[in-house]
Amino acid sequence: MKITVTTENLLSGLRRVMNVITSNLANPIMNNFLLEAENDKLMITGVDLALRNNTEVQALVISPGKITLPGKKFFQIISALPAGDINLEISEDDSETVLLSCQKAFYKINGLSASGYPETEDLVEDWSFSLPVKDLVSALSKVSYARSEDESRVALNGILLSVRAGMLTVAATDGRRLALVEKVLPENESPEREGDVIIPYKTVQELMKSLSLNQTVKINLTSSTAVFETDDTSIVTKLTEGVYPNYRSVIPDNFSQKIAMPRIDFADVLNRVSLVLSNSSSSINLDISTSEMVVWAKSREYGEAREPLDISLEGEPISIAFNPDFFLEPLKYLECDQLIMKFNDNSTPVALCGDEGFLYILMPMRNV
Amino acid sequence: MKITVTTENLLSGLRRVMNVITSNLANPIMNNFLLEAENDKLMITGVDLALRNNTEVQALVISPGKITLPGKKFFQIISALPAGDINLEISEDDSETVLLSCQKAFYKINGLSASGYPETEDLVEDWSFSLPVKDLVSALSKVSYARSEDESRVALNGILLSVRAGMLTVAATDGRRLALVEKVLPENESPEREGDVIIPYKTVQELMKSLSLNQTVKINLTSSTAVFETDDTSIVTKLTEGVYPNYRSVIPDNFSQKIAMPRIDFADVLNRVSLVLSNSSSSINLDISTSEMVVWAKSREYGEAREPLDISLEGEPISIAFNPDFFLEPLKYLECDQLIMKFNDNSTPVALCGDEGFLYILMPMRNV
Repeated sequence: MKITVTTENLLSGLRRVMNVITSNLANPIMNNFLLEAENDKLMITGVDLALRNNTEVQALVISPGKITLPGKKFFQIISALPAGDINLEISEDDSETVLLSCQKAFYKINGLSASGYPETEDLVEDWSFSLPVKDLVSALSKVSYARSEDESRVALNGILLSVRAGMLTVAATDGRRLALVEKVLPENESPEREGDVIIPYKTVQELMKSLSLNQTVKINLTSSTAVFETDDTSIVTKLTEGVYPNYRSVIPDNFSQKIAMPRIDFADVLNRVSLVLSNSSSSINLDISTSEMVVWAKSREYGEAREPLDISLEGEPISIAFNPDFFLEPLKYLECDQLIMKFNDNSTPVALCGDEGFLYILMPMRNV
Repeated sequence: MKITVTTENLLSGLRRVMNVITSNLANPIMNNFLLEAENDKLMITGVDLALRNNTEVQALVISPGKITLPGKKFFQIISALPAGDINLEISEDDSETVLLSCQKAFYKINGLSASGYPETEDLVEDWSFSLPVKDLVSALSKVSYARSEDESRVALNGILLSVRAGMLTVAATDGRRLALVEKVLPENESPEREGDVIIPYKTVQELMKSLSLNQTVKINLTSSTAVFETDDTSIVTKLTEGVYPNYRSVIPDNFSQKIAMPRIDFADVLNRVSLVLSNSSSSINLDISTSEMVVWAKSREYGEAREPLDISLEGEPISIAFNPDFFLEPLKYLECDQLIMKFNDNSTPVALCGDEGFLYILMPMRNV
């Protein structure tokens, strides 16, 4: 292997696969990147036990070949190099050593033969669908925070991708609140069949970090594996086993009341008022009247806070209490100017909407 | 107490004293700020067991008074408020409650009476000297990293301020390297007497964060206390007890050789080359010839690196090895374009200079 690649290209490729690698003491080669050069491409692969991220960058390939190099150290070295051309070649004296030069800097880096690197399984694609990367990433970011971190509830630790009648639903729930985004799939890309898969959270983080927003991602599925493929990147992940709960059952059929409020102002007010609470199991209260909502909270430790906000209400005045964290999180990830809150009363599930296809369901707290 | 103060002024005052406060379980009022309003000033004080930081900001004082408020929480609340005027007053119903309003936001914050707050000791100033804040802060930042973090060597945990014949020396050493800055004191400000004091590191951090760089600081000293006074801030600190070692004895009288090199380029090269080392007790090597210095390093784990740098040498070619961390740290805090390295041979102390009044002494490592 002998190639020339720009610092910028190499670094952008390494950044895309960097986070997959963890410290694997049992199989040290998994701490390495696999570098493979052929056809004017350098392919960079990182793996862990459940995930394989492979990405390619443009390179001048003088002779093809492959090698593995210590992941975190190689990334540190490339990050410290000046902008320009990097020359990389396998030493003629030692097939596990890479010679690197960039301007006046020269390195001889100890690697491991590519022959010991975990291989890709042969996957027989079962079904597949495609959508723009930006739609997938936007949906994942708008729901992921609502997943469960309770390790005994494995299915809820992941994010659901559900395809029904040409519609993709991306959903997360921890059993106390639910976030979902529904997206009509591009018509010529509608899947051959329907189904549900649960994507592990580490894979979701990889997708959000690695995929280029201006590309299209094809999602190939088998019963135990998903492959996310774009022009330059391929992420293979084991799926989370288990059955996702019937989340649709918690969504009320109708809402009799509705208020609209400016999202960013509401988030600021919630944030300010909740500061007087001393722990996150306390409630924040909304006193809703026709044109104004007063947000208030109090704690024995710090005192009281209240602040009014202009709103428009369709329905009857009411007071509702919530866990402030559950309310604040979705507001951070939405993009809409106007947030819509729908409800029937102060003891049944409440919905937040605003962004197209987005729905968030949470339970009020008992009024204090 | 009833005042109006801008969010910006209050926040800048709180930021200056914020870091003094630690969680004190034995005496909870020490977790609070003391707020005192009089003569169009709001004075804000934070304390810990060894340190008292008092700063003042402009305010419209409608009626004078004082109160203490929970430090970290009050800072969070003020940070979350919109820009504008903040009205603060002690409640007429409860002398330990503060009413705060800012635009539409309203708070009732639980405080504690100022009567329980630790008082200032009456200090009889023993001797004093003054200098521009920027000179003090610059000297502290150029030496502090060289102090010892070994808690059994209390004197070396602090920073020495030594005044002799109108000259201030600010010094730090951990016994393996020494950093100092010498500064001629302003002539009309030369001290009535001479002496050495050791300032605890937490106080040094306070001085670097709290003092305004365009002011002058007067340093008032007793045998156990130092007071750093500027136009708006007063920091009272206990001094570290103990005797500072005779650091001057490690500085060679003469150097027979000298090289000059660009500081930033040298730091980049050192940083890049040292990345192949697997632990910080390894050495980085300088092979110095007339017009070039080759920086190189190697480790069994990662391999080798080398990079040449243009220099000018007055003396004989030589090879010297160093701990790379000890070499990199001073380079970060200096401002000079050209770094000067002076030495006699590769086994006796080496000096780094460049910034006016700055001197750094370190021992080479045994050559590999």
